[in-house]
Amino acid sequence: MKKTLLTLAVLSTASVAYADEGMWMPQQLPQVAKQLKAAGLQLDPKNLTKLTEFPMGAIVSLGGCSASFVSPQGLVATNHHCVYGSVAYNSKPGRDLLANGFLANTLEEELPAQPGSRIFVTKEVNNVTDKIIDKDTAKLTGKKRVDAIEKNSKALVSACEKDEGHRCNVYPYYGGLEFYMIKQMEIRDVRLVHAPAEGVGKFGGDTDNWMWPRHTGDYGFYRAYVSKDGKAADYSKDNVPYVPKHFLKLAKDGLKEGDFVMVLGYPGRTNRHRLPSEVAYTFDWNYPAFVKSSGETLAIIAKETAGNDDARLKYASQVAGINNYYKNRQGMLDSYAGSDFLARKTKEHEELKAWVNSNPERAKQFGEDLVQVEKLIAARDAQSKQEFYLGSSFPRLLGTARTLYRLANERVKPDAERKAGFQERDLPRFKAGVESLERSYVESVDKALVLNNLKKYAAQSKAERNADFDAAIDIADNMSEADLKALLDKIYAGSKLADKAARSAWLAAKPADFKASDDSFIKAAVAMYDGFMKREAEDEELGGKIQQAYANYMKAKIAYMTSKGQAVYPDANSTLRVTFGKVAGRDHGTADGLAWSAFTTVNGIPPKATGKGEFNAPAAQLAAIKAKDFGKYVDPHLKAVPLAYLATLDITGGNSGSAALNAKGEFIGLAFDGTLDSIISDWDFNKANTRSIQVDLRYMLWQMKHVDKADKLIKEMGAE
Amino acid sequence: MKKTLLTLAVLSTASVAYADEGMWMPQQLPQVAKQLKAAGLQLDPKNLTKLTEFPMGAIVSLGGCSASFVSPQGLVATNHHCVYGSVAYNSKPGRDLLANGFLANTLEEELPAQPGSRIFVTKEVNNVTDKIIDKDTAKLTGKKRVDAIEKNSKALVSACEKDEGHRCNVYPYYGGLEFYMIKQMEIRDVRLVHAPAEGVGKFGGDTDNWMWPRHTGDYGFYRAYVSKDGKAADYSKDNVPYVPKHFLKLAKDGLKEGDFVMVLGYPGRTNRHRLPSEVAYTFDWNYPAFVKSSGETLAIIAKETAGNDDARLKYASQVAGINNYYKNRQGMLDSYAGSDFLARKTKEHEELKAWVNSNPERAKQFGEDLVQVEKLIAARDAQSKQEFYLGSSFPRLLGTARTLYRLANERVKPDAERKAGFQERDLPRFKAGVESLERSYVESVDKALVLNNLKKYAAQSKAERNADFDAAIDIADNMSEADLKALLDKIYAGSKLADKAARSAWLAAKPADFKASDDSFIKAAVAMYDGFMKREAEDEELGGKIQQAYANYMKAKIAYMTSKGQAVYPDANSTLRVTFGKVAGRDHGTADGLAWSAFTTVNGIPPKATGKGEFNAPAAQLAAIKAKDFGKYVDPHLKAVPLAYLATLDITGGNSGSAALNAKGEFIGLAFDGTLDSIISDWDFNKANTRSIQVDLRYMLWQMKHVDKADKLIKEMGAE
Repeated sequence: MKKTLLTLAVLSTASVAYADEGMWMPQQLPQVAKQLKAAGLQLDPKNLTKLTEFPMGAIVSLGGCSASFVSPQGLVATNHHCVYGSVAYNSKPGRDLLANGFLANTLEEELPAQPGSRIFVTKEVNNVTDKIIDKDTAKLTGKKRVDAIEKNSKALVSACEKDEGHRCNVYPYYGGLEFYMIKQMEIRDVRLVHAPAEGVGKFGGDTDNWMWPRHTGDYGFYRAYVSKDGKAADYSKDNVPYVPKHFLKLAKDGLKEGDFVMVLGYPGRTNRHRLPSEVAYTFDWNYPAFVKSSGETLAIIAKETAGNDDARLKYASQVAGINNYYKNRQGMLDSYAGSDFLARKTKEHEELKAWVNSNPERAKQFGEDLVQVEKLIAARDAQSKQEFYLGSSFPRLLGTARTLYRLANERVKPDAERKAGFQERDLPRFKAGVESLERSYVESVDKALVLNNLKKYAAQSKAERNADFDAAIDIADNMSEADLKALLDKIYAGSKLADKAARSAWLAAKPADFKASDDSFIKAAVAMYDGFMKREAEDEELGGKIQQAYANYMKAKIAYMTSKGQAVYPDANSTLRVTFGKVAGRDHGTADGLAWSAFTTVNGIPPKATGKGEFNAPAAQLAAIKAKDFGKYVDPHLKAVPLAYLATLDITGGNSGSAALNAKGEFIGLAFDGTLDSIISDWDFNKANTRSIQVDLRYMLWQMKHVDKADKLIKEMGAE
Repeated sequence: MKKTLLTLAVLSTASVAYADEGMWMPQQLPQVAKQLKAAGLQLDPKNLTKLTEFPMGAIVSLGGCSASFVSPQGLVATNHHCVYGSVAYNSKPGRDLLANGFLANTLEEELPAQPGSRIFVTKEVNNVTDKIIDKDTAKLTGKKRVDAIEKNSKALVSACEKDEGHRCNVYPYYGGLEFYMIKQMEIRDVRLVHAPAEGVGKFGGDTDNWMWPRHTGDYGFYRAYVSKDGKAADYSKDNVPYVPKHFLKLAKDGLKEGDFVMVLGYPGRTNRHRLPSEVAYTFDWNYPAFVKSSGETLAIIAKETAGNDDARLKYASQVAGINNYYKNRQGMLDSYAGSDFLARKTKEHEELKAWVNSNPERAKQFGEDLVQVEKLIAARDAQSKQEFYLGSSFPRLLGTARTLYRLANERVKPDAERKAGFQERDLPRFKAGVESLERSYVESVDKALVLNNLKKYAAQSKAERNADFDAAIDIADNMSEADLKALLDKIYAGSKLADKAARSAWLAAKPADFKASDDSFIKAAVAMYDGFMKREAEDEELGGKIQQAYANYMKAKIAYMTSKGQAVYPDANSTLRVTFGKVAGRDHGTADGLAWSAFTTVNGIPPKATGKGEFNAPAAQLAAIKAKDFGKYVDPHLKAVPLAYLATLDITGGNSGSAALNAKGEFIGLAFDGTLDSIISDWDFNKANTRSIQVDLRYMLWQMKHVDKADKLIKEMGAE
């Protein structure tokens, strides 16, 4: 499991709460206080609802990953794969921090995280449904509705962000039925403190990803820095470590099977109550297409970066991300193939419709939207299918040119009227993205990837293709691969955007500057602009209709569930959630007759360690294991240092780096993965199979003390 | 796990009874009635003590394997590997029953089992200690004691066997402290009824032997035949199926994890309370030497039979047996290497000695024997070590010549005075062994095996070698491999014993005939006879001393255990025992982070099936699995046909083919193996690791009905 991209989840849905299932909004926890108590929680559940008190106050978001403060000096623990980009960013040939790991022995030695890195500390959460869908908005439909929601949202956000150094976002819950605004302190000076060698932090690599037994030491540390007066600030030598109001204490006692455990973090997205047609579209078309395309992308990157360490490092993070989703989607497809999911989903939906239509009042309130939502979504899915290759046929710099030109056009308007994502508040991240591009870009690789997709795009009929894109980059019917390659060679050669200074200069340019440019990518971006804006308006028209119908569908669904006595929690939407359960192996694994132990130990490393590639455990670590140099981190029952453990927790992408806490609320490790045969739980919760994988605190401390000599860091966390 | 050779266990020891540990004599069961009840047994434990009542009356021995009656027509269920020799015996090039399996559709189609096959039905068990060690015998020591015990034993056996068609044996318990005589009906007409294809019955072969997860359908069926008047008889067309007084009923309900299960059978030997010096000798020298030698033997047989189907079939059974022990002993050595067994054993023994010596009366009763037993056993072990290569340097036909000549010499005496094994009662088995030799003998293979061992034997110093053997086959100092080969070529060429008729003729010969023969093996046997008889007398002198001291040592040990409130059951000695426990997986397997499920299913076959060698599942079976043609044998939780299951049962070699019964005493499968990391339990019971492996009745029936179309047999067993 890897970090999810930070996407604004336009639609998030809801789910029934079964035992072990549930990504609870903190404010919902009193509803499940009894279950929490029964499961073994020793804290008062009410304390977990207070977002700025202990322990919630220690939980932060990295935007795509979860994390937590673990010292009074702003030390942040998260997954190795969540700091991976920053390790790669600071690596170069001859200084391969990925391979060797990194440990700052002093504050001065800490390295800036990759540009755009953030630590978000939640300050407030407020229900703003009545302000987003106000009386006037409620009457609107289509694009007008979308525009009104966006306008209301931006107004709230803008007012909220008057408090400097903070970022506010409005999140839809229950499929857009409710909206909450979340205010977070946005720490912009993030520094890399420690990451173990890749042979520890990424041990097992993509081979072991989503797998059990697992021996990945998936942990790393950032530190939050602020100005001397404690405000969020850009990087400066004068900045000082942030002093969090709360930080997690390390557990003194180790876990054992059956123990209570909970995970606090920011799960990205689940889809547990989507429509049958969405299930069919996703599993019968979208995911298979994605898997095929990802496989090709990985092969091309491998081929194009072979023997080129610099290129390999630049694409390392993307490769990790693609591999992750590739395996994830394939895993879901495998589960789907053997399941009755679609039939069950269809039956449930039919039952909902029957329930709605069995009562005239309900039929009047929900009936039409239940019909409409299916049609609208079918239309959207058909559009997505048609544009599948278009999306991946954009040279990366053409994409950059498009957004730069869009920015220039938006900037002409007053800030409040600009499209979300192009407001003043968005510019720093925007700028960082534009400026850091070459750290993860190699023209030859990009061109090979685009050519592969463009071939498929160009092979579509003219009607299926996008006329604006075709015109902008000169696509015609029946172009051969050689034609397309020549076309790409010409357009890549005609642009200076690969140059950082040239590219950055466009951040401040005006629309007229773009129109006057003869840079090939800029020209193409200008040429397709009006057409794409029209497409966007059409999308919004459809989106507005969907929002309206979908919210009403969810309202019907919640009413139906409630009528059956079933509680409902909202699907994940990248906001703070709590899941609780217990440490537990599985009575069945993936091979017939083999089950899963709840724990792995360091003894599992040597048999996997090949001394190279994904299984390149450090020699010092192997020596310590061989010598049974386990110190106080040995588990008396397992007779070795516990490495990772399984738990019945309901997590998903975005939960990566989430703190796992024991019954007392003490830190006992980091969630970092799920298992391949249970990730379909994102759509269809599978109680028997679903297990989260956590790296055990004892392994983190053992590796830090006995191998990496990070004693100082351990001491900072209050241990020894 | 494969069948143990039927050996008269001269010394069997005793063990403390822990939970899940215990091979109980049926008469001991009332002592553990509470535990049996608590474990879930629904029968009255008292019923299990009645050897001729249900269910014990249905349990039989095959001599080395266990089995049970499962129909009123004498149908006997046991393991595939227990009928393997008979399948091989009836196989020939072009009619490979091993590969294809065998199913008799009528009684007429049933095939004679391999010569010497027996079914033993226990009739009586009596404590005869006072008759074996009577007042006079108790005063004797050394060879005289051995002779007296043998004389007393033979007298009892002889009287008992007056009842025609029965076989009686005296078995020592608790290291010769107690003796029981067991009277069994000896059914001599045994026929092969059904064995699945080797790709089912031996699926996984030696690779999976002692392993989990397991997918071996290790079952096969014999039928017992008797004369028309119901007496044991030699094979005859006129014989009729034996009607057993009791037979097991098939369970109607499938097992699930946690269910009570018991196994009734004939475990061969355990060594749980041997002396520390015996542990050291066995694990530090004997087993390592055995493993090395077995590896060489297997390599030589493979080389010498390569490309020769006839030779391969002839050695198939031996190869299976050697492979089995090879893996078994290596598994024990691996467990031993990581254990504190010897230190613990030594400490326990020191505590016993301290307890004995802390009390003058006890010191007087046991002290001297405790000292002596260690010295005597050390002497015996030294002797065994020196003669390790001698034992394997005998050409097989020289061994036959020796026993034939011994027989001739014994036959001169009245029957009662003959050495045990050479009495009239022994002749039929003796004869069968001599006559069936070529079914498992190829001269070139035998010679290659002997040469390999003889090289090592001959390399020993003259003092270490056996002068009688040397003289008989012309071994001198410093012989080269070529010398030895020439010597073997000559001696093999000089004998006609490879010819069945010539060999069988010697069964009736007199000593003078042997002395006058110029057959090379007969001459050598005659030449070494006196010397080896002298060695035997020396062995018996030592053996008698050991018997006396060992029995007293065990008496001390039992007294010590009893003083600590610990019950004691005798070590396994090839007599009927009961072990009970539950169906249970393991929270740890052999790979870090992987545990063991309690069940495997047929779904585990296709991923292993390579279509050849040890994993050659039949096409019809694979098709049925693919089609999920599971019928009523599907387990609702596992959603497939259960194949094998683990249980916390205390079994060992000899238990193979043992019936597994559920809480109601119904047949639910067959025990056939243990697991490699727990076979050291034969010496040092390991509660955490020890699991027996059973083939599930549901798999047997599914394979028989859905694949092998053995409906008639299923019906005979009262199912459908």
